[in-house]
Amino acid sequence: MVELIAVDGIGEIAPGHDLAALLTEAAELVDGDVVVVTSKIVAKAAGLATRRSRDEVLAEETDRVVARRGGTSIVRTHHGLTMAAAGIDASNVEEGYVIPLPRDPDGDARRLRARIAELAGVTVGVVIADTAGRSWRNGQTDMAIGCAGVVPVASFAGKTDGHGNTLVVTAPAVADEIAGAAELASGKLGGRPFVVVRGLDASLLSADDGPGAAALVRDEGQDLFGLGSREAVLSAALRESRRGFLDAADEWEGLDEVLAAASVPCRRDGSRVLIERGDDDIEAGATAERVWAVAFAYGLDIEILVSTDSGD
Amino acid sequence: MVELIAVDGIGEIAPGHDLAALLTEAAELVDGDVVVVTSKIVAKAAGLATRRSRDEVLAEETDRVVARRGGTSIVRTHHGLTMAAAGIDASNVEEGYVIPLPRDPDGDARRLRARIAELAGVTVGVVIADTAGRSWRNGQTDMAIGCAGVVPVASFAGKTDGHGNTLVVTAPAVADEIAGAAELASGKLGGRPFVVVRGLDASLLSADDGPGAAALVRDEGQDLFGLGSREAVLSAALRESRRGFLDAADEWEGLDEVLAAASVPCRRDGSRVLIERGDDDIEAGATAERVWAVAFAYGLDIEILVSTDSGD
Repeated sequence: MVELIAVDGIGEIAPGHDLAALLTEAAELVDGDVVVVTSKIVAKAAGLATRRSRDEVLAEETDRVVARRGGTSIVRTHHGLTMAAAGIDASNVEEGYVIPLPRDPDGDARRLRARIAELAGVTVGVVIADTAGRSWRNGQTDMAIGCAGVVPVASFAGKTDGHGNTLVVTAPAVADEIAGAAELASGKLGGRPFVVVRGLDASLLSADDGPGAAALVRDEGQDLFGLGSREAVLSAALRESRRGFLDAADEWEGLDEVLAAASVPCRRDGSRVLIERGDDDIEAGATAERVWAVAFAYGLDIEILVSTDSGD
Repeated sequence: MVELIAVDGIGEIAPGHDLAALLTEAAELVDGDVVVVTSKIVAKAAGLATRRSRDEVLAEETDRVVARRGGTSIVRTHHGLTMAAAGIDASNVEEGYVIPLPRDPDGDARRLRARIAELAGVTVGVVIADTAGRSWRNGQTDMAIGCAGVVPVASFAGKTDGHGNTLVVTAPAVADEIAGAAELASGKLGGRPFVVVRGLDASLLSADDGPGAAALVRDEGQDLFGLGSREAVLSAALRESRRGFLDAADEWEGLDEVLAAASVPCRRDGSRVLIERGDDDIEAGATAERVWAVAFAYGLDIEILVSTDSGD
């Protein structure tokens, strides 16, 4: 039997808090337990909560934009994680603050595991969990963005089932399933950032720290869904025209030319593109999307403004 | 505390078996339990195992192709599920047989739930689980393809955290996390198709059957990743030329014209496209991919053959 035990009595986390000390005081751990901790309190303890603007932090966390619709940006982070708004969070944090993901979640998991062993003399696994949406399915699940002492992806390749069929491609994402299971016990509102998973089969644990959650990240270029459908079309359709300008000293000139060629009614002021509202808001919105599309294909970071006054 | 209890002593499942009877004989269920069952034994009991070819069954199960690379087809099934090979499985089944997903998993979950109540006098939730890959991440997780008496997607919209921040977009995919958690207790090789999840918060259960796992399927057209990056480019790039031929009596003519225009060296015999190998296998392979690309953009189902003899 596997038990999911949410740990009560953990208060607010502040920069510099010793998470291992707080956990081992609140819970009796045993060898073979896996401790699931939310990425948020790891980031809080590391002092990553900031009053800087969400957009500023997003730009820092973003490796590349994967897809965008309306105000939502799905990006690939410097960790290789594909998440809306780079996993930056403003919930369960003081108003006015935002929290990015921990810089090195696998390292944090290894350090937390070592510190727990030091304080409580037990060998446990550690999973650092964060919440993310998925393609094709509604709702979010918790996944492992860092882990140590846990098999992130089990491999049954070569093993056979009861009928002698070889299980070739079966590779359960164990660490992700552990993170998701923990959320069932903790709940989003309970303020219970630690869940102990007890009784997992030894084959799902590793004596050493193991490869970490980095093993769960599909390599860039190996994914069939590396870009949103629309972004893939735009980048391909404009690749030629873009290539023509990559040698040019100023890509902005190229942007202006393409916008003119696409007869998009707008003016550019540095990285700000001004669109005249005219008397049709829907048309103005469509124009803004076309401008964004071209800028995306150029890899140019622009600010789009729609004039407030009709006509001018 | 939440408990994950794998049920032992369930033998091979054959067509016509009463799954609820087998389960209630092997396990003591209590009100509030959630029973997770693999889609495979639901399909086996329904007599869906077949000796027909995988490709034949795949064509039946496919609503549309989402992405393809090499031998792998990721398709959207008639259930709205996006899965490699439509979730058709050849593991844990007699050699030579393949098993498609159950036709109506939410209906199966409701019937199983009612039958368990009838036999054991308990009110439980039911989740029918299957294994699927994800975009962006290695490994697979189990997800809910059918459920009853369980909240498939919890909504915290409007609720506030400890700091008074409103949790707008948080909507945990509870049924998927239950399915994934169950796999941690059952294991892939153990032949334990039932896992009882005990102790879930009442807010994750529903007195009635509820909307089922259909609520976890993002509506067609609402997904940013409705097509693989390459497929999106192809379908867009060829949409114009395709539209030109949609009025034509025979789309195959359009295909021939485009293949000629793209100077793809091949001959067509009905739905079979013959590619001359020449003396460059790599070029022949690339040609086959180009042919598939055009056929994909046309929505035409073709068979691609590369001549075995050099030069023909």
